[in-house]
Amino acid sequence: MPNTDLAPAALDALRACTDAARVLTDPADLEHYGRDWTRQVAPAPSAIVLPASVAEVQAVVRWAIEHRVALVPSGGRTGLSGGAVAPGGEVVVALDRMNRLLAFDPIDRTLTVQAGMVTEAVQNAARERGLFYPVDFASKGSSQIGGNVGTNAGGIKVLRYGMTRDWVAGLKVVTGTGEVLELNRGLVKNATGYDLRHLFIGAEGTLGIVVEATLVLTEPPADPKVMVLALPDAAAIMRVFAAFRAQVALSAFEFFTDRALAHVLAHGAQRPFETEAPFYVVCEFDAVGAAETDALAAFEACAEEGLLLDGVIGQSQAQNADLWKLREGISESLAPHLPYKNDVSVRISAVPAFMAEAQALIAREYPDFEVVWFGHIGDGNLHINILKPEGLAHPAFVEECGRVTALLGEVIERHGGSISAEHGVGLLKKPYLHHTRGAAEIALMQGIRAVFDPHRILNPGKLVD
Amino acid sequence: MPNTDLAPAALDALRACTDAARVLTDPADLEHYGRDWTRQVAPAPSAIVLPASVAEVQAVVRWAIEHRVALVPSGGRTGLSGGAVAPGGEVVVALDRMNRLLAFDPIDRTLTVQAGMVTEAVQNAARERGLFYPVDFASKGSSQIGGNVGTNAGGIKVLRYGMTRDWVAGLKVVTGTGEVLELNRGLVKNATGYDLRHLFIGAEGTLGIVVEATLVLTEPPADPKVMVLALPDAAAIMRVFAAFRAQVALSAFEFFTDRALAHVLAHGAQRPFETEAPFYVVCEFDAVGAAETDALAAFEACAEEGLLLDGVIGQSQAQNADLWKLREGISESLAPHLPYKNDVSVRISAVPAFMAEAQALIAREYPDFEVVWFGHIGDGNLHINILKPEGLAHPAFVEECGRVTALLGEVIERHGGSISAEHGVGLLKKPYLHHTRGAAEIALMQGIRAVFDPHRILNPGKLVD
Repeated sequence: MPNTDLAPAALDALRACTDAARVLTDPADLEHYGRDWTRQVAPAPSAIVLPASVAEVQAVVRWAIEHRVALVPSGGRTGLSGGAVAPGGEVVVALDRMNRLLAFDPIDRTLTVQAGMVTEAVQNAARERGLFYPVDFASKGSSQIGGNVGTNAGGIKVLRYGMTRDWVAGLKVVTGTGEVLELNRGLVKNATGYDLRHLFIGAEGTLGIVVEATLVLTEPPADPKVMVLALPDAAAIMRVFAAFRAQVALSAFEFFTDRALAHVLAHGAQRPFETEAPFYVVCEFDAVGAAETDALAAFEACAEEGLLLDGVIGQSQAQNADLWKLREGISESLAPHLPYKNDVSVRISAVPAFMAEAQALIAREYPDFEVVWFGHIGDGNLHINILKPEGLAHPAFVEECGRVTALLGEVIERHGGSISAEHGVGLLKKPYLHHTRGAAEIALMQGIRAVFDPHRILNPGKLVD
Repeated sequence: MPNTDLAPAALDALRACTDAARVLTDPADLEHYGRDWTRQVAPAPSAIVLPASVAEVQAVVRWAIEHRVALVPSGGRTGLSGGAVAPGGEVVVALDRMNRLLAFDPIDRTLTVQAGMVTEAVQNAARERGLFYPVDFASKGSSQIGGNVGTNAGGIKVLRYGMTRDWVAGLKVVTGTGEVLELNRGLVKNATGYDLRHLFIGAEGTLGIVVEATLVLTEPPADPKVMVLALPDAAAIMRVFAAFRAQVALSAFEFFTDRALAHVLAHGAQRPFETEAPFYVVCEFDAVGAAETDALAAFEACAEEGLLLDGVIGQSQAQNADLWKLREGISESLAPHLPYKNDVSVRISAVPAFMAEAQALIAREYPDFEVVWFGHIGDGNLHINILKPEGLAHPAFVEECGRVTALLGEVIERHGGSISAEHGVGLLKKPYLHHTRGAAEIALMQGIRAVFDPHRILNPGKLVD
């Protein structure tokens, strides 16, 4: 895409696509809408457009084709891989104004929403109707459904409820040619060829702009119980997971290290118990049948084997929420340290061997950096956050982290894992994509992209070239 | 594809791709391997090849490119839309010899199998390991996993367990260029761009040949209870479904008509009770907690409202199996009548209005044909089988049914439904695809197909051109 500044005539034509007032070019707006939660690439969009309807999104896409300007689809910009960053004169298409609930069907148990609806608003809308939207993560208060679809958002309840993919019954999208597709239309069963809905989930806005989603809801959890556990070493994590999973249907099984706990406590969370340990777990299950008794039996058995040093079980919803904050508050508590984030996964069975190797690599390669581990261990998903030392310049820090990530990528590849479990590829993980996807797969992704976006206007430079 | 007979040199080269003895050209073999459970299109393959390894499948694909011969990937050939029929001189690639279990991982709870493994063998392998593969349908004794993936097979437990798609953690495929792709490798979380695994699920062998699958297993059902219910009219079906679903977690909720029952009884099944009714339901749930009491309460409430005329609950596994035969035996009992099959779906909420309209259309357009309705009503999926009258020639019968299917397609389109819920498109449903997929979607499918199969050798003429 050649443009970095828009010609006045092009800007006027863009203003004609929506209310003129909804095209922003103020430097503060360009900075705000031009970046996501990452801070590695400077934002430099040429304009921001806030369409209010599907027709306006189509008009913007057609405008982009005519004026040969790249578009960056943009939700809550809570992304952690630079998928929604606009570093090169793109026009950001922010879905903020398309945030309405369009329909609820109690028989189908579906909500149809515009893509700009905030995740937490969807969760609340479900709850108000006696149902439950189970995709849940720390940034739910500002992330949008369209962005969740774009990265196939996961989070803290994947163990029981799966990813965003599992809750999308239909999508409305505008492709790179400005056509509207209505994908799967809320059907449970539809064997009519390639399921393009699933192709759009996780496509990071490179195939089209998601404008509406039909989401499946489920029964609310019966009576959630939350436990926090203290573990003596990394090897205990998977053994405790196996012992608990054999006894109760776990909704979540998350771990974090003592360093993570220190940050979240410094940020205002409450210590769960006096015992200090190198590793902690927060787990959740529904207190149906004998589940609570069974979980306590698992706890006793693990403690006798020396796999657990201490533990606590929430006695109220308020206490459950406090316990969850120990895990959910980690990202926010690390933010001031401009962390470099690795979000990797392997098969669950490969976690112990991978984790040992990754820990050794990181101890060796980052002797002077603080490293904070946490993650969704029950899904094989580890978050490895490297904190920037005070004195080091950000570019030098990022370069050093990139060097180690390349080494980590080789370890991931040997263990058959993924260089991005749930953050997507965007700009920041693209150099490491080949560790997870073969050359033939990457070439096929490029081919598919060209089919949906022949003019190459959608999020260029992200994911694959 | 120009060839209908293979040149002797081409046949010799094909024999060199595998054991020479595994290339079949005997007319009986051509007929056996050249067709599926449909009987509308005459099989006319030029040869059958039975590769024994991924490398041999690759060799066959490269041979096909060189000799410009079309390939038809072939599993158990239990398909009902002609997706595996070879009507025009193709070489059938039958996966029968690639039927081994390759790996079981108790921590990941996955089975990795070759694509030719029979569905029931997978179910048994899971059961022997204390786990459960829940995709289940009448043809499980001969259908193969590769074919299940190709059509995203559904069946009788979708209500609780979803489709084949929900149980595939990884696929190994050979594309139309002979490349091997290892898709998703068993990972729970993997946000590295387009999920090509999901693109292959339901692609009917048009993007590549599935050679291996990694399947997720789950806990076996606790204590399944099976009920058969008698209903006074079609309108009662969805009301009884809603009443039961509000009380118990249903694993299955299937309906069939009195005509379906008559066929399956004539085929050897046992009448569940004396009461005769126009509609019957078989439903299943696990007897956990108060489920059985709750289900009986739902039964009583429905009976008081006049929504149920009679019912029975299985008292043993053997009786449960007998009750299930009433539903599962229907297809087999109809087979001698060469039924024309419609397999359609709408959103669950649209079932009553759609069903009323479809019933009126069918009563009007088929005054002299016997029509048998059954299906997975809890998923919005209806099977409408038209039986061939004794005296009518098969081609004339098919032509007449095609005329009515075009009318039914318009009704389906008005209700936002699918012309193929779980049978796929293949050859037989292709003329009606536009009722469910828009022109832009079909064009995009053609574009994707060209990316994976640039030489147009994989299952040409099926699904989309």
